[in-house]
Amino acid sequence: MTISIPRGTQDILPGEVELWQLIEQKARELCEKYQYQEIRTPIFEHTELFSRGVGDTTDIVQKEMYTFEDRGGRSLTLRPEGTASTVRAFVEKKLFGSANQPVKLYYMGPMFRYERPQSGRFRQFVQFGIEALGSNDPAIDAEVISLAMNLYKEMGLKKLKLVINSLGDKESRIAHREALVQHFKPRIHEFCSDCQNRLEKNPLRILDCKQDREHELMSTAPSILDYLNDDSKAYFEKVQKYLTQLDIPFEVDANLVRGLDYYNHTAFEIMSDAEGFGAITTLAGGGRYNGLVEEIGGPETPGIGFALSIERFIAALKAEGVNIEMNQGIDCYLVTLGEEAKDYSVGLLQQLRLAGISAERDYLNRKIKAQFKAADRLKAKFVAILGDEELKNNKINLKNMETGDQVELDLDSFVSTFLEMQQ
Amino acid sequence: MTISIPRGTQDILPGEVELWQLIEQKARELCEKYQYQEIRTPIFEHTELFSRGVGDTTDIVQKEMYTFEDRGGRSLTLRPEGTASTVRAFVEKKLFGSANQPVKLYYMGPMFRYERPQSGRFRQFVQFGIEALGSNDPAIDAEVISLAMNLYKEMGLKKLKLVINSLGDKESRIAHREALVQHFKPRIHEFCSDCQNRLEKNPLRILDCKQDREHELMSTAPSILDYLNDDSKAYFEKVQKYLTQLDIPFEVDANLVRGLDYYNHTAFEIMSDAEGFGAITTLAGGGRYNGLVEEIGGPETPGIGFALSIERFIAALKAEGVNIEMNQGIDCYLVTLGEEAKDYSVGLLQQLRLAGISAERDYLNRKIKAQFKAADRLKAKFVAILGDEELKNNKINLKNMETGDQVELDLDSFVSTFLEMQQ
Repeated sequence: MTISIPRGTQDILPGEVELWQLIEQKARELCEKYQYQEIRTPIFEHTELFSRGVGDTTDIVQKEMYTFEDRGGRSLTLRPEGTASTVRAFVEKKLFGSANQPVKLYYMGPMFRYERPQSGRFRQFVQFGIEALGSNDPAIDAEVISLAMNLYKEMGLKKLKLVINSLGDKESRIAHREALVQHFKPRIHEFCSDCQNRLEKNPLRILDCKQDREHELMSTAPSILDYLNDDSKAYFEKVQKYLTQLDIPFEVDANLVRGLDYYNHTAFEIMSDAEGFGAITTLAGGGRYNGLVEEIGGPETPGIGFALSIERFIAALKAEGVNIEMNQGIDCYLVTLGEEAKDYSVGLLQQLRLAGISAERDYLNRKIKAQFKAADRLKAKFVAILGDEELKNNKINLKNMETGDQVELDLDSFVSTFLEMQQ
Repeated sequence: MTISIPRGTQDILPGEVELWQLIEQKARELCEKYQYQEIRTPIFEHTELFSRGVGDTTDIVQKEMYTFEDRGGRSLTLRPEGTASTVRAFVEKKLFGSANQPVKLYYMGPMFRYERPQSGRFRQFVQFGIEALGSNDPAIDAEVISLAMNLYKEMGLKKLKLVINSLGDKESRIAHREALVQHFKPRIHEFCSDCQNRLEKNPLRILDCKQDREHELMSTAPSILDYLNDDSKAYFEKVQKYLTQLDIPFEVDANLVRGLDYYNHTAFEIMSDAEGFGAITTLAGGGRYNGLVEEIGGPETPGIGFALSIERFIAALKAEGVNIEMNQGIDCYLVTLGEEAKDYSVGLLQQLRLAGISAERDYLNRKIKAQFKAADRLKAKFVAILGDEELKNNKINLKNMETGDQVELDLDSFVSTFLEMQQ
């Protein structure tokens, strides 16, 4: 009997993994240019971190977490996202006291949500995200957005839509919240039970409800933008000014909300505009969270970040038909004839590899013709042919697989000759 | 109240994460030269995979797994090692039918074992491992060992000890097993209860017992090397011959055993010989497992691989005092004076970064002196100084922080001038 992969997860195999590697490498390089440094936090955390850091009223915490007890009876949860863990480490390791401020971090790795598996949605998925902690400068909001946009652009995506909004500061949000309660309260019985609960706890999240999105009160709900005080307006204007300066087109959408109390000011989403991308078009989301560090037990610290899913990134590349040439082929395949040549090739192969040459030989005792076929399948640029006779005479033949040219070389200087030929 | 990291896990922070990145990058590069390709499997698998693939009688499966039920009632386990998952994917995705044979794979990522946390042991740790599936050529045993040894060497480790053994083929192991039962049976009541269970199930694992290691019957137990049949002897000799050819010193230790039925022929461990490394000196372990693919439900397929822990790798580098210079400093820090210059720098910063220059500016509204200090902390090679006056005149000053030299440049061609100066 075979054992299958868990539902909603996937293996990433050679042939497709190279694209993942490339995206991750680009992300790392871009982070280096932008001066974001990697942080790695555990795959699981104490469950409480997410109920506090992601929010008790969210679908994630209520329905989607992989929560279990360890052998010591502690409740642990596989991380559903990266911000809470990053902030936990920021607080616990006292990064708020670091000399370099703001603290600019990135993370990359698997996240877990128990959702109904569907196209583009996995129970284990990979997120890349950044967090800038310690600055209230609207220029860093623009920087965070530009890093995400530039990563997509560098990989060749063109059909991107950036949507931004402001949730304002605390004062603005309180005023907006009251207006929302007044707006929905008289007819809240027409809404789903989730929304009825949200009315007092977190009315902003009603606007996010998938079930009630067609209700007429939705489109007439008071807009946060009408409740921004002067400081919040000025902040939002500055962010927009910087985005324009960075040549990043955007739309303002007052319905883009993040329902947690510690979110404020800038919120944004990047979507794919590509045809045939499917229902879930959001590629990345982020925003400012000036209350989160305190919520997790640290000093008052402003923060902003985004997270994007690599799975969706790849889906967008496919939807746009971006062509990325991956398999370059190996440098040299060693074909051997005879037992002594075969034994000798073990050492020669290692010499080539340690000289920085990607090289391969046969491990299936194949005949010479089948060895050449294997070389073709690996797209070998050169094939080196060594028989027992050549070995005795300190010779080896090298065939250029593109031109068909073949030369006889001295065996004992073969690796250095090969290196010289590459230059 | 603060929330702490789960016991036995760690955050890897900027300042230490760079060494992890470097090791991983070296491993990836070496795999490319050796033609091993990455495979990524999920963090959790169906529990049955590990009870079958790692072995019901092992400590890992009996005591150390993070096992839990998902919301659908399925028993899942955080992977305690990488081979079982890799083989599961090999079988499920039918890689045994792939044109390139043998299938050479590597993996890198977190593994989980609920052990008592102690120095050098974590409940979440990172393994890098490779698996070569489909070849019975002793040359590939030597290749697998050499890849591990060369990775350590490339990072600067010198005090390494390679220990190898042969567990022989099935016939040899059956003969040895009978000899072991005869040897221990008369006095098995003097051994721990685990060993008493092992006697019939898997007597080889008695040799691995930590509790009974001082018992006099241990040192006089029959050696597998005395029970190898001719084929197994010839195989083992060939592996040793190739290792010698590859200049890899080794010791043969007949007590190096792997207690699972599907292990056979080559077994090996790489240990650190560095003083002060602590009690756990094993850096990497591996071996041949010609029965595992069948056990997981695939066709009979020979396999060999190894796994190493990045945590131990780093501990060994520290124990040997290997000095690795990591932080190279950023290319350019933008110091601004005045509101307009500061706003302008948002765009200039992005231009620098997109041109491949690592660059930073102030996000804390700091005075000019504090901006220079921030540049020093980031080890900036150059500082570009832009005031409102310079901005008006299309100028910018660039200071070489190593020499102290300062030049005035045209602002609108600054990025290209800076790039030229780097060459």
